[in-house]
Amino acid sequence: MESWRGFGSDNHAGIHPEVLSAIVEANEGHAHPYGDDPWTARATRAVRAQVGDEAQVAFVFNGTGANVAGLAAVCRPWESVICAESAHIMTDECGAPEHIAGVKLIPVATPDGKLTPELIKPALTGFGSEHHIQPKVISVSNVTELGTVYTARELQMLAELAHSKKMLLHVDGARIANAAVGAGSSLRALSGDSGVDVLSLGGTKNGMLAGEAVVLFGAARTDDLAYVRKQSGQLASKMRFISAQFVAMYEGDLWRRAATNANLMATRLAEGAQAKTIDIAFPVQANEVFALLADDSIQALQDRFHFYAWEEGLAHQHSLVRWVTSWDTTSVDVDELVRAL
Amino acid sequence: MESWRGFGSDNHAGIHPEVLSAIVEANEGHAHPYGDDPWTARATRAVRAQVGDEAQVAFVFNGTGANVAGLAAVCRPWESVICAESAHIMTDECGAPEHIAGVKLIPVATPDGKLTPELIKPALTGFGSEHHIQPKVISVSNVTELGTVYTARELQMLAELAHSKKMLLHVDGARIANAAVGAGSSLRALSGDSGVDVLSLGGTKNGMLAGEAVVLFGAARTDDLAYVRKQSGQLASKMRFISAQFVAMYEGDLWRRAATNANLMATRLAEGAQAKTIDIAFPVQANEVFALLADDSIQALQDRFHFYAWEEGLAHQHSLVRWVTSWDTTSVDVDELVRAL
Amino acid sequence: MESWRGFGSDNHAGIHPEVLSAIVEANEGHAHPYGDDPWTARATRAVRAQVGDEAQVAFVFNGTGANVAGLAAVCRPWESVICAESAHIMTDECGAPEHIAGVKLIPVATPDGKLTPELIKPALTGFGSEHHIQPKVISVSNVTELGTVYTARELQMLAELAHSKKMLLHVDGARIANAAVGAGSSLRALSGDSGVDVLSLGGTKNGMLAGEAVVLFGAARTDDLAYVRKQSGQLASKMRFISAQFVAMYEGDLWRRAATNANLMATRLAEGAQAKTIDIAFPVQANEVFALLADDSIQALQDRFHFYAWEEGLAHQHSLVRWVTSWDTTSVDVDELVRAL
Amino acid sequence: MESWRGFGSDNHAGIHPEVLSAIVEANEGHAHPYGDDPWTARATRAVRAQVGDEAQVAFVFNGTGANVAGLAAVCRPWESVICAESAHIMTDECGAPEHIAGVKLIPVATPDGKLTPELIKPALTGFGSEHHIQPKVISVSNVTELGTVYTARELQMLAELAHSKKMLLHVDGARIANAAVGAGSSLRALSGDSGVDVLSLGGTKNGMLAGEAVVLFGAARTDDLAYVRKQSGQLASKMRFISAQFVAMYEGDLWRRAATNANLMATRLAEGAQAKTIDIAFPVQANEVFALLADDSIQALQDRFHFYAWEEGLAHQHSLVRWVTSWDTTSVDVDELVRAL
Repeated sequence: MESWRGFGSDNHAGIHPEVLSAIVEANEGHAHPYGDDPWTARATRAVRAQVGDEAQVAFVFNGTGANVAGLAAVCRPWESVICAESAHIMTDECGAPEHIAGVKLIPVATPDGKLTPELIKPALTGFGSEHHIQPKVISVSNVTELGTVYTARELQMLAELAHSKKMLLHVDGARIANAAVGAGSSLRALSGDSGVDVLSLGGTKNGMLAGEAVVLFGAARTDDLAYVRKQSGQLASKMRFISAQFVAMYEGDLWRRAATNANLMATRLAEGAQAKTIDIAFPVQANEVFALLADDSIQALQDRFHFYAWEEGLAHQHSLVRWVTSWDTTSVDVDELVRAL
Repeated sequence: MESWRGFGSDNHAGIHPEVLSAIVEANEGHAHPYGDDPWTARATRAVRAQVGDEAQVAFVFNGTGANVAGLAAVCRPWESVICAESAHIMTDECGAPEHIAGVKLIPVATPDGKLTPELIKPALTGFGSEHHIQPKVISVSNVTELGTVYTARELQMLAELAHSKKMLLHVDGARIANAAVGAGSSLRALSGDSGVDVLSLGGTKNGMLAGEAVVLFGAARTDDLAYVRKQSGQLASKMRFISAQFVAMYEGDLWRRAATNANLMATRLAEGAQAKTIDIAFPVQANEVFALLADDSIQALQDRFHFYAWEEGLAHQHSLVRWVTSWDTTSVDVDELVRAL
Repeated sequence: MESWRGFGSDNHAGIHPEVLSAIVEANEGHAHPYGDDPWTARATRAVRAQVGDEAQVAFVFNGTGANVAGLAAVCRPWESVICAESAHIMTDECGAPEHIAGVKLIPVATPDGKLTPELIKPALTGFGSEHHIQPKVISVSNVTELGTVYTARELQMLAELAHSKKMLLHVDGARIANAAVGAGSSLRALSGDSGVDVLSLGGTKNGMLAGEAVVLFGAARTDDLAYVRKQSGQLASKMRFISAQFVAMYEGDLWRRAATNANLMATRLAEGAQAKTIDIAFPVQANEVFALLADDSIQALQDRFHFYAWEEGLAHQHSLVRWVTSWDTTSVDVDELVRAL
Repeated sequence: MESWRGFGSDNHAGIHPEVLSAIVEANEGHAHPYGDDPWTARATRAVRAQVGDEAQVAFVFNGTGANVAGLAAVCRPWESVICAESAHIMTDECGAPEHIAGVKLIPVATPDGKLTPELIKPALTGFGSEHHIQPKVISVSNVTELGTVYTARELQMLAELAHSKKMLLHVDGARIANAAVGAGSSLRALSGDSGVDVLSLGGTKNGMLAGEAVVLFGAARTDDLAYVRKQSGQLASKMRFISAQFVAMYEGDLWRRAATNANLMATRLAEGAQAKTIDIAFPVQANEVFALLADDSIQALQDRFHFYAWEEGLAHQHSLVRWVTSWDTTSVDVDELVRAL
C-alpha cells in the first residue's frame, strides 16, 4: 500500500514514534489488567503533573467514550448539558450522550463555535421545575469544532457562570494539546486552574494509537467513575498499552511538541492560502483551517490532499472546506497544498 | 519494572510479537479513519475466510463493547437475553447489557457453565404477552466462564431451539480461538455453520493489544450495526491499528497457534495438578483450570503465580481457584507451578 | 373548599359531566383488565370512526405517556425527532423523550411555534452517516404551544417532506380537538387523511379525568406498541375507566362541543382584550390567548384569574401572559377578566 | 353489557362507591394541576397518618409507575435490585425496571415467593468491584405474588440486612392493605416502622379507579423524586382526582374495610375448597388462593368464574390455579364457586 499524508484530520495520522516505542517497551511479560499495573500508575502521575495534582484520572479508548463517561459520572437522568450547536457531542456522536450518558443536550447557536456567558444565559431556565430538564453542565470543546480556542480567562468566566448555578464545566479536549499551544497556556491553566470540573483529555489526535482520559477535578471527583467507565465499555483489560502511550506523551513534553508542529503547520497553511487571496473563515488558533474555495476547484484538490468539505453550496459557487494538520505534517506537505491552490 | 508471567488471566499476557509487528507495519503515513482504510478491508476478508464468507464484521475495542453492540443491533428494548447465571454478561459487565444494549437478562443456573435446551426451556415463556419481556436471544460463552467448551453439535441444538422460537443465538467468543482448538473445530464450525447468529469474536485474550469484532450471520446482518457501534463508543478513529491486529491473527493461523499453546499448557497443568492429587472441578477443555486448593496453601501460591480465587470457603477448608494459560505460557512456567503445589 | 374557575390551563378544569357519567356507568361488576373489556372495544371503535377506520389505538394515562409510547414504537435508539424549540416534548417533559423513548430531539426555532418545510430542511442532515443521529420523525404540536393551529394542508406538506426522506410525521394532539374546531376540520382531516403517522390524541384537556391515546396510521402500525405501552408504565389495569371516557367523548360529538366552547371563549377574550388596546402576540386559532400586559398590572390579575406569565421582562415593562379557556369557561368568566384588564 | 363478578384478580373489580363519591366531590370548579391542589395536600396528610408522619409521598397512576419511580429515585445506573424470581417487577413489568428505572434485577429463587436473609446473602457479592453491578436494593412484594405475607418482624430482618450493606429495602405494596390485614398489623408497622425505605403503596387493587403512591422514608427521601415521576410519565395533570381517591381510602379506614372483606372471602374460599379435598398450594394469608385442580375440570370453572391458571401441567394431570378475592366479593360468590368445585 502506497503511503500518503493529507489534511483530512489529525486522526488520519498514525502513531508518533515515541508513543509506539512506549507500547513496545510495555510489552514485557505479564501485567495485572484493568489499570492495576505500573504503567497506569506512571501515566496517572504524568497526567496529574500536567493538569493538577489532585485530579482523578481514568483512561478510556476514545473521545466519545471519554465524553460519555465524564458526563455520566456527574449527571442524573433528568439533567441537561448545554453545548454549542456545532459541538461534537451534539453532531458527531450518534446520540451517545443521550443514550449512553443519559443526559439531554441543549444546543446553543454560536458564530464561531464558542459559547459565551451571554449566549448561554437564555438556556439557563427551569431550575427547580419538575417539568423541565435540570441544567447541570456547560460543555465546550477546546479546540472548538471550528478551530477556535478558549483562553483560560474565557474558561474562568464560563466556570464562574456554571458554579453560580451549581452547575459544572466540561471541556471536550480531543485537541486540548493544540488549544494549550494555541493559547500559550499550560494544560493546567486550561483545565483545573480555570475551574474546569470535567475534562476529556485527548490523546489519539495528538499522536497516539488510541487513548483518551476522563479527568475530574475538585468536587466532581467520584468513585462512581469506575462503574461508569466499565458499564460504558471503556475499561481496557490490557490497560498498560493505553497507559504507556500517556507516559510517552505526558512524562515529558511530547504532547506539546506534537501539537506545536501541528499548529505551526496550520498557521503556515493559512498564511499561504491568504497570500493566494483565499478567504479563511475563522481565526486559525490551533491546527484547523477553514477556507472558502471555489466549488469547481475542490474535487481535484481533495483527490490529492484528502480533506473534507465542511459546508457545501455557500454563496457565489463557493464552499467551506476544512484542513487539519497533525504531528507529522511537514512544511513540504503544506507548501505543496498552497502551490496547488 | 521486573518482568513476570502468571496464571491470572489471558489478559495478563502482552501482545503477541506478530501482532505487534503488524501494528508497526500499519504505522505508515496517513489512512482514512473509522474503517475506511486498506487494513480494515484486509482484516474483514481475513475474518470472513475463517467464520463465513457472507458474515458482517465490525471491529470494536473490547469484549463488553462487542457483546453490547451485537445484542443492541438485534434486540428491541422489550426483549430479553437468556444466559447462564455464570455468564460474563451477567456477572462481569456492570450492567452494560441492560443499560447500554437495553436488554433484560434472564439468568439460568447451570452445573458447568453450559446451557442446554433442557435448561433453557423453562425460561421460554411469555411470548406474545405484553406484561412479559419477550425472549429474543440465547447467549452462551464459548469457552464458558468455567473453562468448558460447546461443540458444534451442541451449538446446533441451541440454534435450532432458538430459531424454532424466532429467537437468535449469540456466542460470547472472548476465547473462541481456545474453544475451536479445544473442540477440534474450525471457527466456522463453531459460528456460522452451526447456526450462530451473533458472534463476539475475541482478539485481546488471544494475543492482541486490544480488539474484538462483532460478527453477524445470515438474517441477523443489519445496517443498524454501524449506528450501534458508534453510539456505544466502540468506533475507533485510527481503526487501521485494530484491524492490522486482526490481519496478523487471521490471515494465517496465528489465532490457532496462540490458542493451541494456551490449551496445551492448561492440559499439562491440570495433569500435573492431578498427579499431585489435586481435584480439578470442571473438564479442562480449553485454557482454564479450576482446582480445589487447601485454604492455607493459597496465599503463598498466589504471591508467586498471580491467580484468582474463584469461590472461597467451600467445604473442608478448601477453595476453588482458577488458573488461566495464554499464548506465552511456557512448560517451564507450568512445571514451576506444579512443583509448588 | 371554595370553588373557582380561571384561565391557567385547560387542565385546571374538571371532568365534563358526560364523561363522569360514563365512568359511573362503567362501574358495574367486574371486567377483564388491561383493555380486554367491552368499554375499550367500544372506545376503540369510536376513536377509529373519528380519525380513520384502520387506525391502531392504544389508551394511556397522560400526554407525556402518549408522546413517549408513540415515539418509542416507531424509533430506534440512534434516531432523532425534529421539533419546534417551543415544543412540549422539548421543554416540558423533563427529558422523557430522550430517557424513556430513547430518541434524540433536534430543536428548530420558529416564529410562532409552527414548523414549516423550510424551517425543517436544514436539520435534515447526516442520513446514512454512522456519526450522526438519523432523522426519523418530524413532530408538531397541534394546537401549538403558542396557540396556533396547523391546517390539513400544512400537515400534508410536512407529511410529504417526512415521507420523502423515509421519515414519519408525529402530531402531539393534547389539544387536537381544539385544533380541529379551530381549523374547521374533522379529526380525520388533521391526522390519518393528511398523512400523519403517529398521533397523541388528547383527552384530559378536552374534559376527561385522565386519558390520552396513541394512534398509529398506515405503515406505522406495529405490534410493538403493546410492549412499549406496558414497559413505559402506561397500561392501565382497570382500563375500562379510561376507555369509558373516550366513549363519552368520541361516540357522539362531545369532543367537538367541549372544544367549540373553549375556542369561542378564547376568541371572545382576545376581542375583549384588543378592545382594551391590549396586544395579542399570536393569532388566536384555538383556546389559548397570549397577551402583552404591563408588568405592574399582572400580579393582581393573576390573583383573581389564575393564569401564567409566559415570558417575563419583555421591552417597555411588559410581559407575555397566557390565558387558556376550557370546556367549562363561561362568557361571564371571560367578561369578568376583560373588565378587569 | 351483562354484569358479573369473578376470581381473576382484584383489578377485575370496579371502583369502591366511597372512592367514586370522592371523585365526584372533587369535581368542583378548577384546581391547580400537578398536585398543587387541596385534595393532594389532604391525601398526603392522610397517607402520612397511616405510614409515618415524616414520609415523602408522591402519587402516580399505576403499580409499574410506582415501582419504577421509587427505584429510579434511589438507584444509579450501575446498581442492582435483588428480588424474588416470582416478583412482579421481574416477571410482569416487561423490563420496565431495567429500561425505565435503569437498574439491573438479580432474581433469587424462593419456595413461597418470600425472600429471607439466607436466600439473599449469596447474591450480596461484588461490592466495590467495578466489574460487578453494585447491589443497592432488596425488593419484596407484600402481599407476595403467591399470596403469602411478610410480617413486620420479617421485614425488620430484611431491613437490617439491607442497611448493614448500605442498601435499601423496597416493598412493592400493590396489595399492602391486604398484607396489613393479613398480618394483623398497621401499615406503619409494615413500612416505615420496620425500616422499609421505599414503598409502592397500592390503591387500584384495593378499590380505586387508578392510583398508587411512591412513599420514601428516612434517608431515602429526595427531591429527585419529583423529576423521576415527571420523566417517567407518572405525573397526573388533574391530580386532584387521583388524590381524592386516596382521601377516601386513607382518611378513614376504607383501605382496611376493603382489604378485610377480600381477605375474609379468600379464607372462606380456601376452607371451602379444602373441605372438598382440594389441595391449597401456599398459606392463604391475604386475598389470594392457589389451588391444585384436575386439568379436565378447569375450563368449565374458568368459563363461569374468570380465574387464571398459574402453572399448567403439573404432575398427575393437575394444574395450579389462582383465585383472587376483592373488596366486592360476596360470600354468595364464594359459596357458588365452592359448590362448583
